[in-house]
Amino acid sequence: MLSTAGPTAAGAGTTALVVVDVLNSFFHPDCGNYYPEAARVLEPIAKLLETARRRDTLVVHAVERHRPGLADFEQPKLPEHCQIGGLDSEYVDGFAPVDRAREIEVPKRRYSSFYATDLGLLLREQGVQRVVVVGVKTNVCIRATIQDGFAGGFQMVLPREATNSNRPHLEEASIEDVSRYFGDVVDLGAAEAML
Amino acid sequence: MLSTAGPTAAGAGTTALVVVDVLNSFFHPDCGNYYPEAARVLEPIAKLLETARRRDTLVVHAVERHRPGLADFEQPKLPEHCQIGGLDSEYVDGFAPVDRAREIEVPKRRYSSFYATDLGLLLREQGVQRVVVVGVKTNVCIRATIQDGFAGGFQMVLPREATNSNRPHLEEASIEDVSRYFGDVVDLGAAEAML
Amino acid sequence: MLSTAGPTAAGAGTTALVVVDVLNSFFHPDCGNYYPEAARVLEPIAKLLETARRRDTLVVHAVERHRPGLADFEQPKLPEHCQIGGLDSEYVDGFAPVDRAREIEVPKRRYSSFYATDLGLLLREQGVQRVVVVGVKTNVCIRATIQDGFAGGFQMVLPREATNSNRPHLEEASIEDVSRYFGDVVDLGAAEAML
Amino acid sequence: MLSTAGPTAAGAGTTALVVVDVLNSFFHPDCGNYYPEAARVLEPIAKLLETARRRDTLVVHAVERHRPGLADFEQPKLPEHCQIGGLDSEYVDGFAPVDRAREIEVPKRRYSSFYATDLGLLLREQGVQRVVVVGVKTNVCIRATIQDGFAGGFQMVLPREATNSNRPHLEEASIEDVSRYFGDVVDLGAAEAML
Repeated sequence: MLSTAGPTAAGAGTTALVVVDVLNSFFHPDCGNYYPEAARVLEPIAKLLETARRRDTLVVHAVERHRPGLADFEQPKLPEHCQIGGLDSEYVDGFAPVDRAREIEVPKRRYSSFYATDLGLLLREQGVQRVVVVGVKTNVCIRATIQDGFAGGFQMVLPREATNSNRPHLEEASIEDVSRYFGDVVDLGAAEAML
Repeated sequence: MLSTAGPTAAGAGTTALVVVDVLNSFFHPDCGNYYPEAARVLEPIAKLLETARRRDTLVVHAVERHRPGLADFEQPKLPEHCQIGGLDSEYVDGFAPVDRAREIEVPKRRYSSFYATDLGLLLREQGVQRVVVVGVKTNVCIRATIQDGFAGGFQMVLPREATNSNRPHLEEASIEDVSRYFGDVVDLGAAEAML
Repeated sequence: MLSTAGPTAAGAGTTALVVVDVLNSFFHPDCGNYYPEAARVLEPIAKLLETARRRDTLVVHAVERHRPGLADFEQPKLPEHCQIGGLDSEYVDGFAPVDRAREIEVPKRRYSSFYATDLGLLLREQGVQRVVVVGVKTNVCIRATIQDGFAGGFQMVLPREATNSNRPHLEEASIEDVSRYFGDVVDLGAAEAML
Repeated sequence: MLSTAGPTAAGAGTTALVVVDVLNSFFHPDCGNYYPEAARVLEPIAKLLETARRRDTLVVHAVERHRPGLADFEQPKLPEHCQIGGLDSEYVDGFAPVDRAREIEVPKRRYSSFYATDLGLLLREQGVQRVVVVGVKTNVCIRATIQDGFAGGFQMVLPREATNSNRPHLEEASIEDVSRYFGDVVDLGAAEAML
């Protein structure tokens, strides 16, 4: 059940695409974390999603989901955001999960998509060894997810065009740190070929 | 935000009720884990739920939720069960969460409600120190949840009338183990007074 | 680096032996958890250790190690035990780790050898899929370790002769629970053949 | 047992000092991660250690300790380092733990001191709410530790003089990220006052 089929075992079936926080929060002008440059990642992410779906590659939408009315350790540091039911926690138009078994949502409450979620367990259950991570922001949730995935033994891959930040100098520094210490920063075409 | 109000700090606000797997799976004759004696826990659990809601105590419904079509490490050992959307993963009539902030669902895929979930984090965020656990089966999900909660530093409480098993000798042994090694086994009235 | 050599990949290299709490605490008459029947597991465990060492199989000694003078969440429930430097935290004579790379100690502070340790990570790094667990007590640390290992996706194996408890009825119940819900209870010869 | 004594509960007893990787690896010219500027953090760290010891504040030495001869998921990315028994895994002269109950070592195998260790559990057991983190390198182990500590609900504090990196632009970016998203960057005097 965990094995992969086809001629390229290292490609098909053992790579997953994790899409982090493609939510209104960062992409909708009415929301608190909005920055206009975020929109530049949408076309690259759409392309990877299209490829992943065509090849039936596992896609995980790792998205902020805080419970309204309950205390959260992020609160002393961050303004309230992405409450369940709020506008900012909704998917950007066209980026919601589609209906197929190998495409799921993992709600998260921390920067890292692995923290207090079943993402690590789920990836191992599907025999995933390599994880392509895309979304926003490079220096916050993307980096935190890559740090944790690397710690857990996954080969972490970051396609350069499919992530950015509202602060380019912090984006650049995290790109360099990821490349040095956590995984591989590749171009979009290379990432697409891995799915 | 994490502090408690009122005269009995040890009671109000620092105790949560965790209701484990009150799902058709165990309670509905058409489902795979059904056993008739399970129904005996429903009235005691209903009583605790009523009290918790009246006092606005935190209630967590920790419930099996497996994703259809994805591999799961439980599968070599257990028959497929509680797939999302299946009859057996639905709440028993009258035992679904009600709409209030301090009553939530935590989906789980393992016996322990703490494993690969945000339950431990969530309880700490709400300042919870004591956890009353109820539901089925005593020697499987209830015990596993209590083992993990104790490991994490919570005072675990098991009301005797609000849990059972299809195998009474295994139920009795786990009751004794819980009492000796993990927490407190109390009667229903004592548990109610803690909420 | 993670691959295994030799003709029987499923046997050699992908199975580990985890020896739980073969410490004076349970085996030395002067120590708090002593019970005379514990000694019956020593010969079977010695046999498995001898086989594992001969085949260079990974052996993990998972042992209680509490830090003197620091608070521990177990304390409200359990008497102080296995403090670092104490007589009861020393290995039973002849059961200390030997000097080879694939034999290590993992200190633990909870019943489960996986809780707040690097055991799960370590086993995955070595490519381990199957874990033979031995030691004491069946219904406490052995069962807790098996519960957690199963949750993490390992095939858990318990050789019947290599574990027991001071309370035989609780031992028997956990043996049945392990067999039904967590792993395989086998005889000593079968376990030896897996190493 | 978990409570704090004295007039300033928020200060004494609820803050810990975590010293990360003050090992030869980064400070000794013969070792692989050496960079000369690392030495600048030693005096500030010595000062904090002296204060913490005088006030009997909890000190945790979180240090890299890899097991020789065993596979480690870091290996495909990082050169072998800090093997147990190696020169580079030894403490810098004068920075080893001293003999008192509230000063301990936590071995780690990942950048984050919380990953696959008992650090989070230990801090909660001691009633710690605020963690002062010092050591090297700012953009790797320090940041990773602060990210995880914040995720777990601790108030993370980074004294500016007590951390640096061989790449100042990455150091600066992580300082800004920590300040924005994870905790408080303070000067040495402020950190000392918290211990």
